Amino acid sequence: MAKPVVTPPKGSRDFLPQDVRKRAHVTRIIREVFEAHGFAPLETPTFERLDTLLGKYGEEGDQLLFKILLRGEPLVKGIRAAAELLTQPGAVVQGRSGETAPSAEPLLADLGLRYDLTVPLSRVYAACQGKLPQVFKRYQIQPVWRADTPGKGRFREFYQCDVDVVGSTSNIVEADVAGAAAECLHKLGFHDFKLRLNHRGLLRAIVEHCGIPASLEGDAITSIDKLDKIGADGVSRELTTRGIAAEGADRLLALLEGGKSLAALKNALAGSDKGLAAIAEIENVLDLASVTAAHEHLMFDVSLARGLGYYTGCIFETAVADLAGSLGGGGRYDGPIGMFLGKDVPACGLSLGLERILVVMEERKMYPEDTTHLDAVMAPIEERDLKAALALCEALRKSGLRIDLMPKGMAPGKLRKHADDHQVPAAIWLEPGATDRASLWRKASGAQSKDLRADELVSALRASS
Amino acid sequence: MAKPVVTPPKGSRDFLPQDVRKRAHVTRIIREVFEAHGFAPLETPTFERLDTLLGKYGEEGDQLLFKILLRGEPLVKGIRAAAELLTQPGAVVQGRSGETAPSAEPLLADLGLRYDLTVPLSRVYAACQGKLPQVFKRYQIQPVWRADTPGKGRFREFYQCDVDVVGSTSNIVEADVAGAAAECLHKLGFHDFKLRLNHRGLLRAIVEHCGIPASLEGDAITSIDKLDKIGADGVSRELTTRGIAAEGADRLLALLEGGKSLAALKNALAGSDKGLAAIAEIENVLDLASVTAAHEHLMFDVSLARGLGYYTGCIFETAVADLAGSLGGGGRYDGPIGMFLGKDVPACGLSLGLERILVVMEERKMYPEDTTHLDAVMAPIEERDLKAALALCEALRKSGLRIDLMPKGMAPGKLRKHADDHQVPAAIWLEPGATDRASLWRKASGAQSKDLRADELVSALRASS
Repeated sequence: MAKPVVTPPKGSRDFLPQDVRKRAHVTRIIREVFEAHGFAPLETPTFERLDTLLGKYGEEGDQLLFKILLRGEPLVKGIRAAAELLTQPGAVVQGRSGETAPSAEPLLADLGLRYDLTVPLSRVYAACQGKLPQVFKRYQIQPVWRADTPGKGRFREFYQCDVDVVGSTSNIVEADVAGAAAECLHKLGFHDFKLRLNHRGLLRAIVEHCGIPASLEGDAITSIDKLDKIGADGVSRELTTRGIAAEGADRLLALLEGGKSLAALKNALAGSDKGLAAIAEIENVLDLASVTAAHEHLMFDVSLARGLGYYTGCIFETAVADLAGSLGGGGRYDGPIGMFLGKDVPACGLSLGLERILVVMEERKMYPEDTTHLDAVMAPIEERDLKAALALCEALRKSGLRIDLMPKGMAPGKLRKHADDHQVPAAIWLEPGATDRASLWRKASGAQSKDLRADELVSALRASS
Repeated sequence: MAKPVVTPPKGSRDFLPQDVRKRAHVTRIIREVFEAHGFAPLETPTFERLDTLLGKYGEEGDQLLFKILLRGEPLVKGIRAAAELLTQPGAVVQGRSGETAPSAEPLLADLGLRYDLTVPLSRVYAACQGKLPQVFKRYQIQPVWRADTPGKGRFREFYQCDVDVVGSTSNIVEADVAGAAAECLHKLGFHDFKLRLNHRGLLRAIVEHCGIPASLEGDAITSIDKLDKIGADGVSRELTTRGIAAEGADRLLALLEGGKSLAALKNALAGSDKGLAAIAEIENVLDLASVTAAHEHLMFDVSLARGLGYYTGCIFETAVADLAGSLGGGGRYDGPIGMFLGKDVPACGLSLGLERILVVMEERKMYPEDTTHLDAVMAPIEERDLKAALALCEALRKSGLRIDLMPKGMAPGKLRKHADDHQVPAAIWLEPGATDRASLWRKASGAQSKDLRADELVSALRASS
């Protein structure tokens, strides 16, 4: 038999104890901040109906969905239908059936893995609206899956941490969400991050003002998003490639370059009601957020555009200088949450990228001093005293201490070395024939004490921790 | 467009905030107990290579695996090969390719969803052995997926909570694992559970003693497992159906009925070294566990057999009277952990069934008094004072209080009603034009105070919580 492959599947990871503890440290802080801000937890299934997911993330998203194979007789039918379909000209294997070209995938799969946390929120909101408060503030920290090409810091299985407020149009929501995100980053130890703020209505007004046709608005906004990556020349080339006339492109770039301040943009867009309304909202959010943790981080940036098409109002993105890409982002979007209800529902949210936060924290050594997960290791010197050791161990555990009992007799020197090797601050051993007393060695001081009863061990371990 | 289906997929569930909090309460306690017992957390990917999973759970398990569809060109090839295969006589759609009959599924899928937590542990143990301590004590609390027919308390997506000790043959491990499981149940509020103990070696010795051929040993043990469900007559019929001669079946049932005590079995199996060795191990585990939380719960039961084939030594199962089936179970198994290393590795573990524990806790109303998740709700009476409210809110949150700010102006009566409706213990509102002072209403006493500064609000909320 060939040697089995034992690495985790491409783009996924095993988390050993130290990894799990680091991740839990970060998610615990994020959770606590979200709860302090009045957000309530939601969890949704790992898979959704394929119908629920297809068509929600664009053509590329449809292709990146992990799909689950049908089972039993439906699979037999599906295989035959898919094989038949592939003999037809124009048929494709991936994508949403019936939209552009007939696709084989929906004939073979009924479920797909969660791709983001917004579509599940929309579905739950439609299913449970009656049970939820009128303004629903939820957070959700769960993995999502994308069949993307893995790279440095990019995985096929990764966690998202989302907060969203559903059901209010007030700008206080933008301020509250930005404040919660900033507070998460503060509590994690980040102080140098920027939180860029812009408004989709402003971008649309700018594009319109430059005489770019509405049909090319999306193209223009996608190009603007790349300004800080590829520069003005790069954006100019891209605008041309996307079919935007030179005159419009030049006006757009001049406005973006010259319009770094809201005052300048107010002048330039004096004739645009939509533009002025968006600027007023930006000013309002900056003002409201000035009393939150987002203060000093939040700044207007006309070149922020955000990739996703669905935003309708303010948009945010947070980043630190030493990481390409963002630590998180979001904004106001009135369409998606109501998509299963067939009507618009006001919503505003922000997603923190757990994996990127972890990468930066690792590089900057921002985790707390390797806090031990055990208070002591314990063993009898002789194997026949294991029961007495277990009894003593249980007494210490009852006092809330975390004690690992070795399943064998061990010489004290070996036990101390084991504690040392595994960053455990103390070792406890029973002399041959001992019943309710033991010796204690503490790593920090090197001090050793003999003949301690359970209560004395508890006091000594508490004092040294 | 047809109205979209918004319920979660068959066998899966949405967890609304109250559900998430109940589940988190239970997993937090289990996690703390496992950590206190020196177990370290492990997390593995949601999907594994299909090769890693197939053939590990028996034929039925292979069929219940959720499989992930191939992507791109490999899928096109897979569809053609699967369709071709299905035209061949004897080909099957489900199962492990090439074992019994050629199967179409492995031509269409490369990954499968996690089916249990033991196979992933085995894979990680093979991949990371050098990084893990010689005796590896790990716990893992993650969902698993099975394409089973859902029923009451049976889901397609559900959580398992596993502890396993890898690398030691000592019976102290059985005692430690049983003690940890019992302590979990105690801390959750269970005091009436039984923890049944038996030994696979004893069952094998009994079967051999009754003259049942070794080839039918598995059948005999599977039938024994049903003794408390279908009674002696039922087991007798099943033994016959499985091809066990009447004489052997009668002797077996007589021994099980008469052999409720270890002393009686010791007599009956006086000639069987294997039987006596197993009995000695059972006595050893009962003795060692008597100093742990398992004491008074742990009891020998010769009719306990456990479904899975891989156990090699002691087996456990825990149950309460008002739930059919078990709350958890496990035992010693020396084969599986080393399966990817090609050698036996001693291991012993126990799995708690989170979903069943939750069902019983719900029915028995064992959750703590609906602990609120918010300390107060806050709103200004007039919308124009939202910024002042947000500033005050942030000051309270900085003190560790959990405050939900309403995104609009609200009359105090409406705000108090909102607090009341959502089980929030206090409401705070700002009078028109107020900046740094607010009114506080406490639900428990009905008391109301005016003109409180942030520090006074903090003291008042702390005092009443």
